[in-house]
Amino acid sequence: MKRRVRIGGLEIGGGVPVRVESMLKVSLAEKEKCLAQCEHLLSEGCELVRAALPSSELTGNLSWLLKHTALPIVADVHFDPAIAMAAMRAGCLGVRLNPGNMPIYKLSEVVKTAKDLGVVIRVGANGGSLSAHHLAAAGGNAAAALFLAVQEQANLLLEQGFEDIILSAKSSSVGNTLRANAFIVRAYPDLPLHVGVTEAGPGDGGVVKSAAGIGVLLTQGIGDTLRVSLTDEPEREVRVGYEILKALGLRRRGAELISCPTCGRRRADVMQLVKLVEPLLSGLPDGSTVAVMGCEVNGPKEAKNADLGLAGTPVGAVLFKKGIPVGEYPFETLPDVLPAFFKTRN
Amino acid sequence: MKRRVRIGGLEIGGGVPVRVESMLKVSLAEKEKCLAQCEHLLSEGCELVRAALPSSELTGNLSWLLKHTALPIVADVHFDPAIAMAAMRAGCLGVRLNPGNMPIYKLSEVVKTAKDLGVVIRVGANGGSLSAHHLAAAGGNAAAALFLAVQEQANLLLEQGFEDIILSAKSSSVGNTLRANAFIVRAYPDLPLHVGVTEAGPGDGGVVKSAAGIGVLLTQGIGDTLRVSLTDEPEREVRVGYEILKALGLRRRGAELISCPTCGRRRADVMQLVKLVEPLLSGLPDGSTVAVMGCEVNGPKEAKNADLGLAGTPVGAVLFKKGIPVGEYPFETLPDVLPAFFKTRN
Repeated sequence: MKRRVRIGGLEIGGGVPVRVESMLKVSLAEKEKCLAQCEHLLSEGCELVRAALPSSELTGNLSWLLKHTALPIVADVHFDPAIAMAAMRAGCLGVRLNPGNMPIYKLSEVVKTAKDLGVVIRVGANGGSLSAHHLAAAGGNAAAALFLAVQEQANLLLEQGFEDIILSAKSSSVGNTLRANAFIVRAYPDLPLHVGVTEAGPGDGGVVKSAAGIGVLLTQGIGDTLRVSLTDEPEREVRVGYEILKALGLRRRGAELISCPTCGRRRADVMQLVKLVEPLLSGLPDGSTVAVMGCEVNGPKEAKNADLGLAGTPVGAVLFKKGIPVGEYPFETLPDVLPAFFKTRN
Repeated sequence: MKRRVRIGGLEIGGGVPVRVESMLKVSLAEKEKCLAQCEHLLSEGCELVRAALPSSELTGNLSWLLKHTALPIVADVHFDPAIAMAAMRAGCLGVRLNPGNMPIYKLSEVVKTAKDLGVVIRVGANGGSLSAHHLAAAGGNAAAALFLAVQEQANLLLEQGFEDIILSAKSSSVGNTLRANAFIVRAYPDLPLHVGVTEAGPGDGGVVKSAAGIGVLLTQGIGDTLRVSLTDEPEREVRVGYEILKALGLRRRGAELISCPTCGRRRADVMQLVKLVEPLLSGLPDGSTVAVMGCEVNGPKEAKNADLGLAGTPVGAVLFKKGIPVGEYPFETLPDVLPAFFKTRN
C-alpha cells in the first residue's frame, strides 16, 4: 500500500479518495480577501489550498489565515529556507519547496523542523522552470528532465530520512506531463503524487487539457491529489476537478446531469429544459443522476435509468422518478412543477 | 494497417489524422438553416456531419443540402431500410443504420446499393438504446452489452461481404465507453472506429466527460474519428474536438495558448492580458504557441519557449518573439501594440 501523509486532518495517498486542491489567487498581503477565497473554495469542496509565500514578512498573515479557516494550507516557499522555517513555525502543516536550491545544512534544519512539527513537504518540478543541467542530462527530453529534477529533490529529502513527501511533475504539455509521471511512479511507487497540467490556460482549452491529462493519469491509477490550473477563478478549478473525478467514477460530488446533444430528430428544446434543471441540481444528494432527453430514440431509456428523468415532448416533458413516469406537463408549467419534483429525490 | 474508408473526399482510418465530426441540430425540414449550420461548422474545421433523416420525405432537402455544401454528410436513418435507400439514391455517401432491426432481404438490398454507390455504413450502439436481450446475454454488464450489439451489427454487414464500415459504441458513462471500445478494437482491429461519450451534457461537465473519455481512448491509439456530444451549439463540439486533439499532440489547428493560473505571487493581471490576446489568436498559423505569464517564477522561461510570449510586469508586459525580448510596454499601450506584434508571427 502506498504511503499516506497527513496535512492536519487531511489524509492524502494510501487508498483514500483522490483529493481536490486549488491555489489562492490573491496575495497573502490581503488576508481578508484570502479568507473569503478559502471559504468560497471550502463550499465548493476544495480540500487543500496552496498559498504563495514570497516573503517571511507575510507569515503573520498566514498564521492569521490558518486560525480563521478550516481549509488546510500548503505554503509555497520555493527556495528560501528561512521562509520555510517561518511558515512551519506559523503553524503551516504543509510546505512546497525546492530543496535543490538550498545549502545542505539549511535543508537539514528545515527537515528537522518538519519532522518535529509533523509538516508534509511537497517537492516537484514544472516545465517552465526546468534547469539547463537537467535538460542537458536528459538529452533534451523535457519529460525525462522533469523526472530528473523531481528525483534530485525527492532523494535529498529521503537521504535525510524524511518520507512525508508529496511529489509532482507538471508541464503545459499533456504528453510531457504523462511521461514524467510514468517515470515517477516507477521510481517512487510508495510516495503520494500530486497531478495536474500546469498553465492549461483559459476556457474550454484549459478544461480539455486538464481533463485529458489528469483523466489519462487517473485511469492508470496515477495521482493521489489533483489541481486543475486554469486562468480563471479558483472555484472553477475545484468544480472541474470534481467533474474529472465524477466522469471516471472515482468520487461523487453533487448530481450528474446526462443530457442529449439534441439533433434534427428532437421533439423538445433540450437546452431550454436543461436551463430549467441546472439550478435545481445543487439541492440533490451526492451521486444523484438526472437525465434530460429530447427525443424518442435514446430518451425514454436514459430518462428511466436516472434517479430523475425528463423526456421531452413537442410541448413539454414527461417526468420519470427511478424509471416510473409520474406525469406529463406542458413547458409553461415546468418552472412551477420541477422544484417540488426535484425535492422528491431527497 | 487499419482499413481506410472514404466518404466522398474524406478519408477515415488507416493512419490519416483523426477526424472531427458533429451533428446538425436543426431539422432537415429547414434546409436553409441546415446549410447555414454546415457552413459555420466548415469554418470551424468540421470534417463530417451527421443529419437525422427520420423520414423519406426529407430526402429532397438532403439532396439539396448535399449540392450546396462541401461538408460530407452521414444520414442517420436508424432502422428503416427504405429511408436508407432513399438517402443513398439522393447522393449521400454515408449512412448510419442499425442492420439488426432490418429483415435480412432488405439489408441485402441496402448493402448492394451501398456497394454500387460507394457508400460507407456506420453501425454502432448507444447506452440509451441497449436492448434487453444484449443486456441479459452480457449478464447485466452494460459495456459488454454495448459490444455485443456492435458485434451483431458489424457481423451482419461483414457476412454480406461489406467492409466499408465505421463502428461505434457510446455510453454516457465514461467507464462503459472505455470498456466497450476496448472490446471492439480487440474483436475488429481493422475497422475504423468513431469515438465519443454520448449525452455528455452542458458546460464544463460535458467538456470534461468528453475530454477524459476521448482522451483516454486516443492515448491508447483508439479512435479514427470523434464527436464531442454537448448540449450546446455544434460549433463548440468541433472546437472542443480540436482542443482534445491539440492537447494530445495529434493534430494542430489554430494557436495554442499557454497561460498561468495566477497566484498570490503574480506581478501582473494575467486574466486581463489573456483577454487582450485571445481575439488575436485566430490570425496565427496552425501550431503557433503563445504564452501569457504573470510572474518571475515560470514566466520568462515559458514566454521564451513559445513563438510569442508575454511575461507580465506590475505595470504591463515584456514581449518575447521566439525567446528574444522585443520590448516592454505599459498596460495601456498593449491594445495598440499587440495586433502588430501578433502579425510578426506570420
